[in-house]
Amino acid sequence: MAKAWHLTSRPQGLPTIDNFALRDLPDAPLEKDQIRVRNLWLSVDPYMRSRMNDAKSYAPSFPIDQPMTGGAIGEVVESRMDGFETGDLILHMGGWRDGGIIGLDMMPNKLPAEALAADMSPQTFLHNMGLTGGTAWIGLLRIAAAKPGDTIFVSAAAGAVGSAVVQIAKAREMTVIGSAGGAEKCAWVKDLGADAVVDYKAGPVLPALTEALRDLGKAGIDVYFDNVGGEHLDAAFAHANDFARFAICGMIDVYNDGKAQEMAYLVRAIPARIRMEGFIYTDQLIEYMEEFHADMAGLIASGAVTMRETVYDGLASAPDAFLGLFSGQNIGKMLVRL
Amino acid sequence: MAKAWHLTSRPQGLPTIDNFALRDLPDAPLEKDQIRVRNLWLSVDPYMRSRMNDAKSYAPSFPIDQPMTGGAIGEVVESRMDGFETGDLILHMGGWRDGGIIGLDMMPNKLPAEALAADMSPQTFLHNMGLTGGTAWIGLLRIAAAKPGDTIFVSAAAGAVGSAVVQIAKAREMTVIGSAGGAEKCAWVKDLGADAVVDYKAGPVLPALTEALRDLGKAGIDVYFDNVGGEHLDAAFAHANDFARFAICGMIDVYNDGKAQEMAYLVRAIPARIRMEGFIYTDQLIEYMEEFHADMAGLIASGAVTMRETVYDGLASAPDAFLGLFSGQNIGKMLVRL
Repeated sequence: MAKAWHLTSRPQGLPTIDNFALRDLPDAPLEKDQIRVRNLWLSVDPYMRSRMNDAKSYAPSFPIDQPMTGGAIGEVVESRMDGFETGDLILHMGGWRDGGIIGLDMMPNKLPAEALAADMSPQTFLHNMGLTGGTAWIGLLRIAAAKPGDTIFVSAAAGAVGSAVVQIAKAREMTVIGSAGGAEKCAWVKDLGADAVVDYKAGPVLPALTEALRDLGKAGIDVYFDNVGGEHLDAAFAHANDFARFAICGMIDVYNDGKAQEMAYLVRAIPARIRMEGFIYTDQLIEYMEEFHADMAGLIASGAVTMRETVYDGLASAPDAFLGLFSGQNIGKMLVRL
Repeated sequence: MAKAWHLTSRPQGLPTIDNFALRDLPDAPLEKDQIRVRNLWLSVDPYMRSRMNDAKSYAPSFPIDQPMTGGAIGEVVESRMDGFETGDLILHMGGWRDGGIIGLDMMPNKLPAEALAADMSPQTFLHNMGLTGGTAWIGLLRIAAAKPGDTIFVSAAAGAVGSAVVQIAKAREMTVIGSAGGAEKCAWVKDLGADAVVDYKAGPVLPALTEALRDLGKAGIDVYFDNVGGEHLDAAFAHANDFARFAICGMIDVYNDGKAQEMAYLVRAIPARIRMEGFIYTDQLIEYMEEFHADMAGLIASGAVTMRETVYDGLASAPDAFLGLFSGQNIGKMLVRL
């Protein structure tokens, strides 16, 4: 019998294991337009935290005592849905569970045969070819309109989205400063091609960014790709060149504590004419999906864009994997392997 | 002999009269491409505060012990510049003085004869047909892309820019909530057509905006036109509808004290996909000047856009007029009449 993680109570601040329970899913014969799936990989992503609140947001709240959902890669074991056959590998939204019945509401999509034939691992569709790679590509190239020659600052550069931003930017001949926490992550960000790194655990961000820009001989940044908010965002305002563009993808610093952000340099929005824009992958996907997939497949095939995976094993580990996102346990994409 | 206000020292925080001195200007026969002018009206504007600092900004710093500059309306008393004759009324940047020699660097422009023939007062070119009206028009209609049916929140709505925003928005069939300090200003903002007012001196902005939206039956704001920053900006983030646009024109709350702004709702930039953009009138002017002038002249002629003027008399009063901007002394456009 398939099992799924249910949200049993709404977290106040940082979630704990007590907010979740692993419970059996009901079983039944398939109806028309249903698939039975065995999941292979589950995605855990920071945006899921906001779905655990009751507040109105772009993604609906997880209902209490219901199975949570999220990106997953599964194998079809039985199908009554046109176009899907036993053995197909699919990307769908029925994550946080080891399998079960998937309907159209879980948006199943077959992984493209040509990608798998090119030895692309299935879980690539949970990162570089999916949510996190698409968020990086759209945010950097479309929302922030970054172009060759620009200087890019990206926070959480050792995360799934940030590490994709670093690599896409380098492939497009931009100068990149990445921020990450600790020597190991910073070393990896450098390995990805970043021209300079800021270790935010080693001291305040603003003077470190000042120093990185000075070392690179750059007057300021043209683009800031924000994954964390707070101190990083304020440092970006402090060092923005005229007409800089900020793509606001995440603010993991404030998702849990909800504290006010102290913005000493926000006022520079006016003299520097800064454009700051919050965005969500799914809004932009219809417009850019085809272009993103084609471009990213090429970048992966050429080796320009790679991904490191931090893997937790087994369905029981899913909450730990999710919570690890907020304590910086992941390098690259955090995944659960079943 | 013409006199001009000189900046004698850089203010720390709020300027005082001790930062300025009224001194004689050197006199000389006119050279080619010079005009001698007698000023009639001087403009004082909040943006001038940043020119008193040493920091790099979009407008160059005022040099110490030199005459300050700014928008002015003058009458030509002698000309060696092609296209200008004695008696012409001109708009130019040689403000903060009662007259003197004006070169091409002061960007003299004759006031259009058709506007004056239509009984438009010359000082209209210092407000609705000039810097403040143009800032309102470009910020609302181009930067924020406000459209009929939108709900607009504008701070400093009893100021020169804000009162123009209120009226342009109402002429375009938008719903308008204006914020101003005190009963007299709020009453004027209502008279201008605002659907609701927030008196920021009567209590915190956020609950007052919440109440105004509830009274109007609106879920949130589509556009925020920011003149003040701080608490108003945070309240706008709290109440922004999805895909709201913020035109950031000024942050008079922080120009002098330089304190960090406490932003509790900035994180809503992501779920609500808010676009925030700082802008400056002069950047956009070449692109939109003709359209702005034609549209605004029509709005003024029809009576849809009016202006209240707060007038200080005499060159000696210019610093007081300027400092009054920061203590809310003006309703509408602050001017100095000579």
